Amino acid sequence: MRLLRVGPPGAERPAALAADGSAVDISSVVQDLDHRTLDPGTLERVAAAVAGGDLPALDLAGQRIGPPVARPGKVVCIGLNYRDHARETGAEIPAEPIIFMKDPWTVVGPDDTVPIPRGSTKTDYEVELAIIIGSTARYVASPQDAAAHIAGYAVSHDVSEREFQLERGGQWDKGKSCEAFNPLGPWLVTPDDFDPAAAPIRLSVNGSRRQDSKTDQLIFDVPTIVHYLSQFMVLHPGDVINTGTPSGVALGMTDPKPYLRDGDVVEAEIEGLGRMRQTFEQA
Amino acid sequence: MRLLRVGPPGAERPAALAADGSAVDISSVVQDLDHRTLDPGTLERVAAAVAGGDLPALDLAGQRIGPPVARPGKVVCIGLNYRDHARETGAEIPAEPIIFMKDPWTVVGPDDTVPIPRGSTKTDYEVELAIIIGSTARYVASPQDAAAHIAGYAVSHDVSEREFQLERGGQWDKGKSCEAFNPLGPWLVTPDDFDPAAAPIRLSVNGSRRQDSKTDQLIFDVPTIVHYLSQFMVLHPGDVINTGTPSGVALGMTDPKPYLRDGDVVEAEIEGLGRMRQTFEQA
Repeated sequence: MRLLRVGPPGAERPAALAADGSAVDISSVVQDLDHRTLDPGTLERVAAAVAGGDLPALDLAGQRIGPPVARPGKVVCIGLNYRDHARETGAEIPAEPIIFMKDPWTVVGPDDTVPIPRGSTKTDYEVELAIIIGSTARYVASPQDAAAHIAGYAVSHDVSEREFQLERGGQWDKGKSCEAFNPLGPWLVTPDDFDPAAAPIRLSVNGSRRQDSKTDQLIFDVPTIVHYLSQFMVLHPGDVINTGTPSGVALGMTDPKPYLRDGDVVEAEIEGLGRMRQTFEQA
Repeated sequence: MRLLRVGPPGAERPAALAADGSAVDISSVVQDLDHRTLDPGTLERVAAAVAGGDLPALDLAGQRIGPPVARPGKVVCIGLNYRDHARETGAEIPAEPIIFMKDPWTVVGPDDTVPIPRGSTKTDYEVELAIIIGSTARYVASPQDAAAHIAGYAVSHDVSEREFQLERGGQWDKGKSCEAFNPLGPWLVTPDDFDPAAAPIRLSVNGSRRQDSKTDQLIFDVPTIVHYLSQFMVLHPGDVINTGTPSGVALGMTDPKPYLRDGDVVEAEIEGLGRMRQTFEQA
């Protein structure tokens, strides 16, 4: 099942996508897609209603798509989690997952415009596989038990300002939480329709391919991440986990590094999860 | 004005406190205290209703007090922001604010029980002055303009697991987001009733004083923090900023460092903002 939210920011309606790309309005079943509704029971009711065939059609033409989760409770990120990306940044392969956080307010729609922050010269792209949590996870016993806590997956863009992140004192979070720095979407794909083990993951800037990998290059895979995180924090429905980015980011290139500039267009996709496209615009 | 939320977790009612400590139910004026209602206009309506004297009394006897903000959008923290605390941890005085984040789900009531995480041997206390944002702050022009964005202040406890934070690879966030690691309260005090410039701030464990300072020891003061943060992220109503902790944390002491143990009782207070009290309990 593919679930999405359609409409202007803050006034999105929940919808489901049929195989042919047409959409149905599911707002008679769930008020929104968020921490109250992304649990397995509610998602089963949505699936049953969609299969029932009586939901009203929703015309997507000309409509904005929002992020597939409203107000995620947290956005937690895994750093340096692709072997090739760790190499390109000159970092060691981590012995255990590196965790940092993004401001949950940064989550925006898959095709929303992203401001380049004032004073920024090093705004960088990072396509990632996002996990969206579906049931409370606390001290999960093993990676094998992680699947029960996953509502679905989406493409995520962990936009990063490298000077703020690495050269302004302290922790990475400073360069990870600028306005609209986490496009997410275009939809949430439930685990029955997506296998995260070996999906091609790509990003291009102005049509030129910059990142091109597969999720089997993850150092810590999806079950390992959910299990690990649940030992340090409680994961709640609607929480978003960005699982790390493959090689090809501007930071890892030789000078002059191709950081994002006013007007640049970034396209990011994961096969099976869809594609998104953001224009970057000087704030 | 002192605003609070009273009742079981997830079912709190908003209330205001009179000078004599009695409370009135303000749920006829605001549904809750959160990102939708902590703006200046709504707070003025609450103040007018409280002054009107027609609101129903709310008996606080035996009732739990919740955190004064429901589901904060983010919790952002300033690290090493008291001169004495920077010294005790052996760190340099930061040239600019160090920023990190906590999972917003960690925000709990001022007197709620806090679990000591499984596997933890270094759970530490940190009393802090919290700022609660009241209007959207984006590229605030100067520290002098920060006041307009502040809804109020509260006592915050930035509970920290030092091994997770410092010895498990990567970023501090790993030791800052365990379950219930951010007691907040007991109420939100609006800026007309609290001056954050030089308030005594204290914490004790099992009745023994551990932290004892004043907010005039902040390296970066409240207006500077709000101005600074707004250059890197958008602050929204209901967002919480923990402004840093003074000296006296267990991490800064000589061995054996007095980390928190099952059954320990922590009391934290800031003069003018009230006092809170948590029991720590092995998870």
